[in-house]
Amino acid sequence: MEHELPAELQTVAIMGLGLIGGSLARDLSAHGVQVMGWDVDEARVRAAVDAGVVHDSLVDDPLRAGHADAVVFAVPVLAALKLLSDFAPILESARLITDVGSTKTSIVRAAESLGIGTQFVGSHPLAGDHRSGWDASREGLFADARVFLCPTSSSSGDAMRLASTLWTMVDARPEVMDAEQHDARLARTSHLPQAVSTALALSLAQSGTPRAELGPGGRDVTRLAGSDPGMWADILIDNAHALTPAIATMVARLAGLQRAMTTRDRDELRRLFAEARAWHQQE
Amino acid sequence: MEHELPAELQTVAIMGLGLIGGSLARDLSAHGVQVMGWDVDEARVRAAVDAGVVHDSLVDDPLRAGHADAVVFAVPVLAALKLLSDFAPILESARLITDVGSTKTSIVRAAESLGIGTQFVGSHPLAGDHRSGWDASREGLFADARVFLCPTSSSSGDAMRLASTLWTMVDARPEVMDAEQHDARLARTSHLPQAVSTALALSLAQSGTPRAELGPGGRDVTRLAGSDPGMWADILIDNAHALTPAIATMVARLAGLQRAMTTRDRDELRRLFAEARAWHQQE
Repeated sequence: MEHELPAELQTVAIMGLGLIGGSLARDLSAHGVQVMGWDVDEARVRAAVDAGVVHDSLVDDPLRAGHADAVVFAVPVLAALKLLSDFAPILESARLITDVGSTKTSIVRAAESLGIGTQFVGSHPLAGDHRSGWDASREGLFADARVFLCPTSSSSGDAMRLASTLWTMVDARPEVMDAEQHDARLARTSHLPQAVSTALALSLAQSGTPRAELGPGGRDVTRLAGSDPGMWADILIDNAHALTPAIATMVARLAGLQRAMTTRDRDELRRLFAEARAWHQQE
Repeated sequence: MEHELPAELQTVAIMGLGLIGGSLARDLSAHGVQVMGWDVDEARVRAAVDAGVVHDSLVDDPLRAGHADAVVFAVPVLAALKLLSDFAPILESARLITDVGSTKTSIVRAAESLGIGTQFVGSHPLAGDHRSGWDASREGLFADARVFLCPTSSSSGDAMRLASTLWTMVDARPEVMDAEQHDARLARTSHLPQAVSTALALSLAQSGTPRAELGPGGRDVTRLAGSDPGMWADILIDNAHALTPAIATMVARLAGLQRAMTTRDRDELRRLFAEARAWHQQE
């Protein structure tokens, strides 16, 4: 990574030092950015300070975040909505306010209502896996990852440019997208697969089937079930509107398989499996 | 693989030269077994003969399979039931009759009704992936794989011993299990994950979402959707009895997530995701 430290991003405050916030802090710190850090879990902040990743702990006075050039909220979606509301009054001097949540409509709308729509640009980096927390954070997490940037109705060009600079600095690839379009798309590409994997894990747990009894295929299907509960509870609630029809479709397709197998309709089952395989092989 | 060729397994007839039958033929042939081969697709038999894997094509006279020491039916489950019935009259001199299907109750019961229960032992090797066909077959596919052996009510000790010898010869690990217990177990550990992955693929296809838009997690969940349609149509129909309650549980767990997210019940959602994660991390 060879990036010059932009003059307008000398200090960045990161609110939440989990997998995403912690990894962002590590990368920015490695580039010479002065990182201010806060987390509801003070031990994480201490660990980040000890690691030389956070230079300025905000534990005793979180509102000092308002002095940073950019403020990043890296906590679960519903918590981010609350923090944004709490901090809005002191964020006037920040040139960029952003987040890292997997849903974008509600936080973009919140920034508009709170009067910080000009400085706010929503971010969603497609990085991370089923691990979570500061201990899982690492340098290079965002390398070559797509990051969706979702403007408010009034985001300034300056804020858009700084958001792009911030993510490019950690080697991610920013892509601008409308917030509602983003949420509709992620409901299908990410939130539905997560809900399905978790529901399958719950089914197997209920029937007393340990994961060790599954073959490689079954283990693939249930891998996402290891994801962070706090993060995903918030995502499902915040994107319920877009996810509800996706889950309904999933239930209908399961019912279609069930119906064909109960009526021993071999042709219909072959057709369904072939349709799924064609989709799988399309790319 | 260092195994002596057992005197009682000089010739083995393999009916069906797809991924499983083809791979079995390759391994047995490498051990010096005389392999007789048949497939509904004659091109596969020609390819297997050309590869030196099948020594004796049964295309012109499949009933000569009755002269082999052991006969293995390696076709989709419902096709195996039909073939077993067609061949039963000429299988009297075989010391072992077996199959490779993912469901075991119906074929074990069929062997009993057809009067070949003494020579029959059902086999289910846990090998293979979403690839299929002769072209995907390879030596070593069964190395270290579990193989469930499901006896009939009258399987002879000789047949049990030969089945165990056959699979050990290709480096698999035989394990004896009751057929109904097998099917109940596989409904959960294999058939439900497959149905879920396929239903998710069908949902995403329906919403016009290409697989390329999914992240690594979503790609994991949909990997099994690439599985062979003919094989899986038969498995679902044959194990509908055991799979039906498993699908019902899956739908109920999806509905539980749906309910909690619609009512914005963050505690309940966190509890559900945490339960799934605990199951995931248990092993």
